[in-house]
Amino acid sequence: MKNDFLLQMSDIQNTTPEYMETLFTLSNGHMGLRGSDLIQDIHKTGNPGTFVNGFYEKKPIIYGEWAYGYAENHQTIIKLPDIRGIILTVNGHRSDEEEWMIKKDTFMLNMAKGLIEESYQIQTINGESFRFSAESFTSFEHSEIYTSKYTISDSNFSGEIVIEKDLSVNKKSDHHSEVDDPRVASMKSDLTVEKYDERLEQLKTHKSQQSILFGQVNLVNGKANYKSLILDIKKNEKMTGYNFVIVSEILKQTKDRPAINELNRLINDLEYELLLKKQEEYFNEFWAVSDIELSGQDKLQKGIRFNLFQLFQNAGRNSTTNFAAKGLTGEGYEGHYFWDTEMYILPFFIYTQPDIAKSLLTYRSYVLPQAKKRAEKLHQKGALFAWRTIDGDEASAYYPAGTAQVHINADISHAFQLYERVTGDHQFMKETGAEVVFETARFWLSFGHFGNKEGQRQFCIDGVTGPDEYTALVNNNYYTNKMAQSNLSYAVELAGQYPEMITEFENSQWQDAARNMYLPYDEKKQIIKQDDSFLDKEVWPFEETPKENYPLLLHYHPMIIYKYQVSKQADGLLAPLLFPNDYDKEQIIRDYNYYEGVTTHDSSLSRSVFSILASRTGQKKKAYNYFMDTALMDIVDLQGNAKDGVHAANMGGSWLSLIYGFAGLSYQGSDLIIENNLPDEISNLAFTLNLRGNLIKIYLDNCKVRGKIIQKGKFIQLEELDNQLIVRFNK
Amino acid sequence: MKNDFLLQMSDIQNTTPEYMETLFTLSNGHMGLRGSDLIQDIHKTGNPGTFVNGFYEKKPIIYGEWAYGYAENHQTIIKLPDIRGIILTVNGHRSDEEEWMIKKDTFMLNMAKGLIEESYQIQTINGESFRFSAESFTSFEHSEIYTSKYTISDSNFSGEIVIEKDLSVNKKSDHHSEVDDPRVASMKSDLTVEKYDERLEQLKTHKSQQSILFGQVNLVNGKANYKSLILDIKKNEKMTGYNFVIVSEILKQTKDRPAINELNRLINDLEYELLLKKQEEYFNEFWAVSDIELSGQDKLQKGIRFNLFQLFQNAGRNSTTNFAAKGLTGEGYEGHYFWDTEMYILPFFIYTQPDIAKSLLTYRSYVLPQAKKRAEKLHQKGALFAWRTIDGDEASAYYPAGTAQVHINADISHAFQLYERVTGDHQFMKETGAEVVFETARFWLSFGHFGNKEGQRQFCIDGVTGPDEYTALVNNNYYTNKMAQSNLSYAVELAGQYPEMITEFENSQWQDAARNMYLPYDEKKQIIKQDDSFLDKEVWPFEETPKENYPLLLHYHPMIIYKYQVSKQADGLLAPLLFPNDYDKEQIIRDYNYYEGVTTHDSSLSRSVFSILASRTGQKKKAYNYFMDTALMDIVDLQGNAKDGVHAANMGGSWLSLIYGFAGLSYQGSDLIIENNLPDEISNLAFTLNLRGNLIKIYLDNCKVRGKIIQKGKFIQLEELDNQLIVRFNK
Repeated sequence: MKNDFLLQMSDIQNTTPEYMETLFTLSNGHMGLRGSDLIQDIHKTGNPGTFVNGFYEKKPIIYGEWAYGYAENHQTIIKLPDIRGIILTVNGHRSDEEEWMIKKDTFMLNMAKGLIEESYQIQTINGESFRFSAESFTSFEHSEIYTSKYTISDSNFSGEIVIEKDLSVNKKSDHHSEVDDPRVASMKSDLTVEKYDERLEQLKTHKSQQSILFGQVNLVNGKANYKSLILDIKKNEKMTGYNFVIVSEILKQTKDRPAINELNRLINDLEYELLLKKQEEYFNEFWAVSDIELSGQDKLQKGIRFNLFQLFQNAGRNSTTNFAAKGLTGEGYEGHYFWDTEMYILPFFIYTQPDIAKSLLTYRSYVLPQAKKRAEKLHQKGALFAWRTIDGDEASAYYPAGTAQVHINADISHAFQLYERVTGDHQFMKETGAEVVFETARFWLSFGHFGNKEGQRQFCIDGVTGPDEYTALVNNNYYTNKMAQSNLSYAVELAGQYPEMITEFENSQWQDAARNMYLPYDEKKQIIKQDDSFLDKEVWPFEETPKENYPLLLHYHPMIIYKYQVSKQADGLLAPLLFPNDYDKEQIIRDYNYYEGVTTHDSSLSRSVFSILASRTGQKKKAYNYFMDTALMDIVDLQGNAKDGVHAANMGGSWLSLIYGFAGLSYQGSDLIIENNLPDEISNLAFTLNLRGNLIKIYLDNCKVRGKIIQKGKFIQLEELDNQLIVRFNK
Repeated sequence: MKNDFLLQMSDIQNTTPEYMETLFTLSNGHMGLRGSDLIQDIHKTGNPGTFVNGFYEKKPIIYGEWAYGYAENHQTIIKLPDIRGIILTVNGHRSDEEEWMIKKDTFMLNMAKGLIEESYQIQTINGESFRFSAESFTSFEHSEIYTSKYTISDSNFSGEIVIEKDLSVNKKSDHHSEVDDPRVASMKSDLTVEKYDERLEQLKTHKSQQSILFGQVNLVNGKANYKSLILDIKKNEKMTGYNFVIVSEILKQTKDRPAINELNRLINDLEYELLLKKQEEYFNEFWAVSDIELSGQDKLQKGIRFNLFQLFQNAGRNSTTNFAAKGLTGEGYEGHYFWDTEMYILPFFIYTQPDIAKSLLTYRSYVLPQAKKRAEKLHQKGALFAWRTIDGDEASAYYPAGTAQVHINADISHAFQLYERVTGDHQFMKETGAEVVFETARFWLSFGHFGNKEGQRQFCIDGVTGPDEYTALVNNNYYTNKMAQSNLSYAVELAGQYPEMITEFENSQWQDAARNMYLPYDEKKQIIKQDDSFLDKEVWPFEETPKENYPLLLHYHPMIIYKYQVSKQADGLLAPLLFPNDYDKEQIIRDYNYYEGVTTHDSSLSRSVFSILASRTGQKKKAYNYFMDTALMDIVDLQGNAKDGVHAANMGGSWLSLIYGFAGLSYQGSDLIIENNLPDEISNLAFTLNLRGNLIKIYLDNCKVRGKIIQKGKFIQLEELDNQLIVRFNK
């Protein structure tokens, strides 16, 4: 086992319990449990808990002043009891009632296998001492299962050790205290609990009408116990027991098998070693394609692996759930899905794990009915996806930085387009994606309008908020217009392939709007205008702003922030990032230099974009510095709020910085180009791309790029130039 | 008594109880009570209650998503029990428990005297019959007193009649049901009740920490009873009793007299006929100056008197209260004070009742500390007045149509300036007004900035909302910039008079900003631009909008409304209204024609402005039509929501339509000009202006204007031209 697949205490700076819990979360995309203290002692600390992707409760949003069309309900992911923590009872004495000596010898997240390994030396107040070891994982083979193997050894006594988990819900400690930070969830929810069978309880939400089954099985010597795990200890003898926590949706009954039988069979056949073997296979397969190797920087190597590991383990995989802004690692942003998935996270999956990408994209098709209803409510045609949501309905309680970010529509279309381009999976587009692209295109025609701009008839989109949430409700946000144009063009392309799905009239409208899209540009400064009025405003008084007043959103009224030229994150620069062929290098440098001066990076989505564009414009030192902030953001707790969960989009951003930036991935026509922009600090970079079923391993060092086809799919050809690699596809 | 001072049932169209209550409200600026059913029967209807100006409760505003600097508390005027309604008990039988025959013979609001006169023929189920008459008013001599004289006559029996008022608070019926209309109050409040003495209870709010004394005295034949009024009736003999309800602040103790003694003396000396005599004197004095006579239109004459009456009776008079948007006639807009006072209501008082104007302006000085704190919270210098408030703190829960309407600062300065111009009261400006003008000027320098506009250095004010709430958070709202310029110029003027109050540096900054204020203008269309981007947007699809979708705010999401060219009310036209000398007639006509086409008049503040500018530009028919909508708005329930209170600003607007419009009041240099713009439908118009202590009566008919000095103050001179009257002042 290479050390740089192991995350240990020594790798991190901040060791507060809440922060540790986030970093050592185990997840499988269905459920995630925070890495809390294993053995519960008399000192209760931290904010432990378990999250199930998409298991949430609703609550009406209360507005100080209501208006028509406002989002109706908060949606908040439910924090279930901590399924990791245990209480030990040794000869009748409990670990959470007496002051024991519990010494942590080993505690590590094994990212190679997707499990936590830990070991403790324990001494009770009565003098009983023993070693306690555990190995735990959320199963990727059966996502309903979280399992642990507990081993007792070196005991100085014979007697009984009982291992218990408290799975009772609605405990007071499940409720995180209310805070004033708008980025943290604040809802408290209660669940109805009903006995389902002798092993399982059914937990039901009140308003969102969801339910899950929840329970545990303990196995010692093949014998099951549903309450606790009881070990008869002989002095100095090794003793092992197993715990399985089941967190399952109620399985749908099918023609072939009654649902309950399937779950019964799963529970009856539980076998730790088999699950462990499968777990290792899953992770072997993952790392074989998705790993990134960096030479010369151990800490960075581990940091990148940590990011890839978190991306992999937190992605929803069942087509009805997505990737929450914090994954399943914490309750920040209430477990909501944002554009983060499409624009920051999906490229990693599209290029290395296309099945997961497909599942995440299918989610958008799954909630398309809600998006169509939302558009209708706003008197618009087509569909408007929710800015933040779990169930597809809009859950943003502040529309200027919520619903007004209509660019999400085009972001989703863009992700479908990238998926089709990289995977060649046209069937999926025909069956699932095309409708999403058409409905979002329809929205633009309805929401925008043709106006006279600079003496020409151009398509304008007014009253929107772009990615920069420090500027709201503006006309012709550059990014939004550019992305809407791309959405419309893609719709036209798909309409050409599936002419039976679209009328000629609609197709021609889309073509007209795309061709005449207004893209604001400042002729004097020769730069992109973030929107019609951005450059007219006063530049934020950065020099008079003390450091402690960042992020601005926590220290200034929105109406004060909005009246200045100041960007929370890359906004005007996103278009050059996504459409590199549409801008020459000098243009990108001018835009870069200007917007860097007015950007606070108060959003975690910002720095990776600056890193990539720095790479592409030969600013290697800058590219490296921005990258280093993104690559290690949570491990160094750069934003100070990792306790609420990891910054998942930023983790995707670190992949983008490496692949789009240092490796300069781009397209020329249908050719994929890798260009060597490696900074001096990184001597080697190796990664794999899955391009239409071909696995291509790519190596960069300070003087060359090399490619190797390690698994051959459809016809593909590599051409190695001096500092470039060209991947050619033949149809 | 001329009939057109009497408002009767036959004068109004809508006779639902809630609507009647609004229209027949009696108020004296301190307290207002809705004109509910006098005799309570077994059918409880309506929404009766009593409001005390400035007596309110606070409640934290809950935001779906909180942000820094948001207003912290709702403020809601408290609805006290109905102090008008009575329960009659005849020989032990109660009017609210049995089905009596109660026939209303007379019911009228006597606007000449400020009282309600009413008379009923009553028959109990036991056959006792009698006539019951009442005369009631809120005293202007002692604003703590609401008093009634009750007379029994023509009784067919001898026995006991008890008249009772239920003054108990916290009854369920005091709480208006919660509604979805954002324009109506929705807070429920409870009061703490403590016995104060044998007659009075002390009512305390919890959060706003206010208290009032509340109680009643009944007098029969000089004998007092604090519970009820008991009349020993002899068959066919007339019998009279008096009721006094006391609603008093706890009077402040002064050196000369202990506060409680003063209130005791007032209560001990209560004498109905004396209060009535004083009441008549007050109203005689009021009408002598403030009346407007119109010939040829009885209904309109009465409607105008009704408006003037409501303005007079609802104005706060104690310098710590102001004029609520609904006066004290209903709970709409929570009893808040807005810019309505300064821009729509104050001109009437400034020109006819300057003492009331002075008191209303003093209120702004009284809350100046809160306005300075608000500016500081927003990291600005100077003061920013609350968009809506009772106690001076911002109470707007939706800042884009609240705090962002920073024009309120300049509106207040403008009202001070008009007051000084019309009254010549420089002393008040020196002692009270100048500081308000300076602090608001300071705000503009801090909030705005110098930018490059059309190649020139100009002063810009970004990120504001103008009066048009269908357009929000824009740059350089024309009205805001023009008013800020006026605010700054006035500050410079005052600084010249009181140089010790301001540094030379600050003065020169103000001059610079005023001189270089950016006023957006469309060179192609040759019209004022409502703001930088207004004319770039798509015009609202009026033709596709069904009638029932107005007002738009109740049927479209704000972000949809904002992205269109559509105005809730006159916005771009307010500058030509207020600064007529700065625009030639052709310019005003172009602006008028353009903005009329994109204005919905969904605000009650809109039509009067269109009427005035139509008058001034020779569009007499249009001026008349807009005026008729404003003049009778509540009497015909034009907006359908008069049940929540009168539209006070619109009432001020009807005065403006007459005086600024039909009588074309304006200035040339220091001369005041009256110009005859009388429409064909109105044959004569007569009104009085108080100009620096001179009372000047002005007569207009279809061919001439005449003026007459009816009370001579400082030197003044009238010049009558063909269709113009010039009032010249000599210093």
